[in-house]
Parts: sequence; structure tokens; C-alpha cells
Amino acid sequence: MMELRKDPIIKRWVIISSERSKRPMDFKKQQQKTENSFCPFDYGNEYSTPEEIIAFRDANSTPNSPGWWVRVVPNKFPALDSENKLKKQGVGIYDQMSGYGYHEVIIETPQHNAKLADMPMDQIKEIIWAYLKRFQTIRKDENIKYVQIFKNKGEEAGASLLHPHSQLIATPIVPITIKSEIEGSKSYYDFRERCVYCDIINQELKDKQRVVFKTDEFIVIEPYASRFPYETWILPLKHSHDFGSLENNPASVEDLAKTLSIITKRFDKKLDDPPFNLFIHTSPFIDGLELYYHWHIEILPRLTNVAGFEWGTGFHINHVSPEQACSDLIEEKDIL
Amino acid sequence: MMELRKDPIIKRWVIISSERSKRPMDFKKQQQKTENSFCPFDYGNEYSTPEEIIAFRDANSTPNSPGWWVRVVPNKFPALDSENKLKKQGVGIYDQMSGYGYHEVIIETPQHNAKLADMPMDQIKEIIWAYLKRFQTIRKDENIKYVQIFKNKGEEAGASLLHPHSQLIATPIVPITIKSEIEGSKSYYDFRERCVYCDIINQELKDKQRVVFKTDEFIVIEPYASRFPYETWILPLKHSHDFGSLENNPASVEDLAKTLSIITKRFDKKLDDPPFNLFIHTSPFIDGLELYYHWHIEILPRLTNVAGFEWGTGFHINHVSPEQACSDLIEEKDIL
Repeated sequence: MMELRKDPIIKRWVIISSERSKRPMDFKKQQQKTENSFCPFDYGNEYSTPEEIIAFRDANSTPNSPGWWVRVVPNKFPALDSENKLKKQGVGIYDQMSGYGYHEVIIETPQHNAKLADMPMDQIKEIIWAYLKRFQTIRKDENIKYVQIFKNKGEEAGASLLHPHSQLIATPIVPITIKSEIEGSKSYYDFRERCVYCDIINQELKDKQRVVFKTDEFIVIEPYASRFPYETWILPLKHSHDFGSLENNPASVEDLAKTLSIITKRFDKKLDDPPFNLFIHTSPFIDGLELYYHWHIEILPRLTNVAGFEWGTGFHINHVSPEQACSDLIEEKDIL
Repeated sequence: MMELRKDPIIKRWVIISSERSKRPMDFKKQQQKTENSFCPFDYGNEYSTPEEIIAFRDANSTPNSPGWWVRVVPNKFPALDSENKLKKQGVGIYDQMSGYGYHEVIIETPQHNAKLADMPMDQIKEIIWAYLKRFQTIRKDENIKYVQIFKNKGEEAGASLLHPHSQLIATPIVPITIKSEIEGSKSYYDFRERCVYCDIINQELKDKQRVVFKTDEFIVIEPYASRFPYETWILPLKHSHDFGSLENNPASVEDLAKTLSIITKRFDKKLDDPPFNLFIHTSPFIDGLELYYHWHIEILPRLTNVAGFEWGTGFHINHVSPEQACSDLIEEKDIL
């Protein structure tokens, strides 16, 4: 079974993907860290992943063999699949859709024990180029409304393999969180005729309390209403709704690689290599959002447990203020 | 610092409560299970909690000493406090509110190693009565818009103490998740002139695939668009928007105790005593929701990690279909 189902109250879609269905007693085992000696993402083990979709590799190397530095493959256990035909139907009072979509893995490096914080800037740049290539290709599929690129680092953040990798899931609907951001930024724009994200950037540059650092093109902040200790956002200083627009700006890609390198190094140094989730929020493939949506990256360090109050209300309790978090992450050379 | 801050995009409030602020390196330690020999919730240790608010205790016992069977105390490290004056203000482009509210702990039993699944039904009934007493008292505070009662069981579900307890947090605003449920059920009602939750109950009773069991007054289902393996909802069969209305229906309280006892026993037996979050969703203290809101309990077993895709999109991937979950939890005597 691989299908999308909609909660009839909140209108939140879920993916029910029980191909890999576990028996009740299997869950405990899963939580134990099993760092196998065999890693499907290592050099020489290319045969053990599904066939690569794209790879950045030496000119004289052949696909699905060594010689690559970034490699994109289909997820072996996809949550969605573009082989499915997109079909929408009602089931009693409920709404259902077939599990159409894409689920891919971006293998960030052949080095099993590397981490983003230690990678050369050029390698990070290549990872971003891999994101962009797949993003721009998948958006051409008219059935796809949104592409979520994300990275889970560390077991507590949900990574099942240690080898550095990111993922991409492309969905036939606009996810509820993106919808909320769009609705929120639209209502702000309707009221003020300005982009709320641009206003946040200006406010932060004025307040100076929550800006970790900025580069030529990006600003790194601890957001005013941060949900998690050390929650961090990266925003392009210049308004743009579309992550894909970087494709035509190699200098921006380079600057983003620099930004990611600096912030992950800070996390590593100041927070002792924390587990984190990182995701890119960008415009869905719908016209009309150009003026008020603003693409950005959110990084959520996973240092605390999310419990009943948060799940029940959507209301988070954060024991580290963003001002404190910022002063913990900042270094002298960052002073604005 | 103890304040509420609003995300200017999604309009999601957070509580920044840095009284207990941790230094960056403290987080790792916190994750290690430290089951101290001293438990502030044990018999004889009543002096080590803040003074009790209410307790069900022997007539000849005195407050803050043994002789109780359920005890409600203020949280020693409250996220919100009714000593704060409620104050709302703008901070640049942001919105802020003082940390007004209530944060209480319901100590469910003097028995340190007990669990809900093993408690006598009468004890569970007493816990529900404690919920109700505090719920009905706090709602009289005009500054309070919502009371969230919840329980975290197990370390993975965010419980920092093993001793069985629930919590209550009362907030001066309606939390975003409750708002979404209200908006969703209102738009359903506007369209169909029926309560969406009542329609769900009818659909489930017809489909029979996701009903774990029902009692005289409650139905226990695995929801159609469940986010988590074995996510379970308990709904009153008879429409009611207000958990507090149970106060006048001792038979309903008894039936709810029975329902909670059965489902936690099932979890214990079929899922090997899983960690879970349990919370009561009920109407905020606002008029006009009587016809379309329907109070209920949600239980989220915490068997899987929530990772970047879920945090980025609000979209969950569930590897156990609710139909499968139901057939795992059901017993022969439940057949409808």
C-alpha cells in the first residue's frame, strides 16, 4: 500500500506507505543503532543502490561504479513513486490519492565518516548543484506541486544511515506547512504590500540580537519565535520565492555553500556536533507567489524531546531564547 | 524570561521560558536516563514539590503529607505562571505576550512504578476527576482561552520522571492545532450542517476496519489519516464539544476510565509497553463552537522518529496503515 490520505478535519495529508510494514514488536529493535560494516553508499558498493539518476563523476568513469563525488539514486524504500498513476478518489467521507511522487537520496560524498561541517566548500557547492539539478528537472512534471529537499543528521534526527546524505520527496499536493507559510505571507502582503520575510530581515539587521552572521547574499538568524533551542534560519538577502532560481546564479550557489559551511562548523564546535534536521522551504509550483513568498532554509537541532504538549497544541516550549542562542553561536568576527 | 512570542508568518505562538536555561553542552547529558533514587512524587516526599493545589486524600490526612491517592501540584519549573500579569505588546514587527498561564502536574498515584495499564479502574476514574476539577476551576479565569491536559509516558515521549503523572498547561491564546481543528470542523459544518467528528464515527462504524472497540459511551479508532503507527483516538459517541461537561456525568467518567484502561492494556500487551503521548482536545473557552466541535483524546505511540520531511512539511509518512494497526490491536471479543 502506498497512498495519500487526507485528515478530514485539519486537511493534513499523510502518506500511508506500508510496503516496509513492520510488525508491532519490530519497532524497539529499529531504535537500536546498528552501524553495519556494509554501507550501500560507500565507494565500490554502487551496485547495492537502485540505479543512479545523476552523478557528478570523472569523465572516464561509468555510471553505478566508483569515480563519483556526488550521487543521486532513488530511495530503495520510497514513500512515493512516479511509477504509480496519479489518481484521486473519495472513500466514504474521506479523500485519497495514489502514492504518486519522487523519493530520492542525494549521497553527499563517497566518504563514509565525513560530515558537512568538515567538508571542503567545493564539495558542499556540488551537493547544492545536485539539489538544483533534480529540483529543476522534477518541477517539469505537471503532477508535482512541491519538492521538499531535506537532510537528517544523526540518529536522534531520524537518520538511519551514518553516511552523509540528503533526501528529496516530491509530492502531488502542497504540504500543509508550506500552505500555512503561503497563507501567512499573503495576508501580510495584502496588509502591508511588503514581503514578511524581507521585513524580518530588516528588523533583525536593526535589532542585531538574533543575527548569527551574514555573507554577501545570505543572512543567518535565530528566529524571534524559535521553537527549538538553536533553531536557525538561512534567508537570501535579496527577495526570491524560488530556490530553483539559484541555477542561474553560480555566485549565489557558492555563497550558500559558504554559509552552510560556516553554520554547520559553528554547530559542530559550539553544540558538540548535534543531530539536526535541515530543510529547504521554497515556492510550490503555482503561479502568483513571486511577490510575497521568500525561499529559505530552516535547521532544527534535535537536542530536546518533543512531547505531548507540543504534539497536542502545535505550541512549542523553548528553554533557550533565540537571543541567548545567537550569543552562543556568534563569534567576534561576525559583529555586524 | 517567560514570554509568548508569535511567528509572524504562520502565526504560531511559542513559549520562550529560559528560567531553566541550559548551556549548549548540557543537552547531551539531559538525554541520558537518570532514574534517581529520590522521586519528588513518592509518598513521604510531598515537601519536595510546590504546595498541592488539590489532592484526593484520606479525611484525616493533612495537605502535603501522605494519605493521598491523586495529587495536583504546580510544576516546579513552570512554562507559564499566573503570577505574571497578562500583558500584550508589539516588539518591532513582532507580537509578544507575557507568560501568563498555569502549568500543573497531576500525580496519578503514590506508586512509583505503576502504569496506567495496570491501575485499577477506580484509580483511573480518580485521575479523570482530578483533570475535571482543575479544568473546571481554571476555565473561570477570564484570561485563559484553552486548557491542554496531556500525559507523556516513557523517556522517548518526553517524560523526565518515571513516576506516573500527567500535566496541564493553560494558555491565554488558542493554540494553532486547536484553531485548525475548529476552522476545519466549522467549514465542514458550514458545508454539510453536520459535525465532522460525528460523521467520522458513523463512517467508521459502517466500515468496521479501524474501530478497535467501543464502550457504551466511547469509540476507539485508528484514524483514517493516522500520522503515527498505532495512533489512536477516543471519541465520545454522543456529540459534545466540552470535556468539562463530564463533570455532571459520573457514568461517563466511569466509562472513560474503562476505555482508557482497555486501550492502555492493549498497548502494553500488543506493543510491548510503548512510550506515548496522550492529550485531550476540547473546545477553547469561546462561545459558538457547540454544534461543530467534538472533544476527544488522541494517543500517539512514539515508536518512530520524526525527521526532516515531517518537520519541513507537516506531512507524515506512516509505515503501518490504520487498518493493519487496528487488526493488531483488536481482540475477538471486540467484534462489533
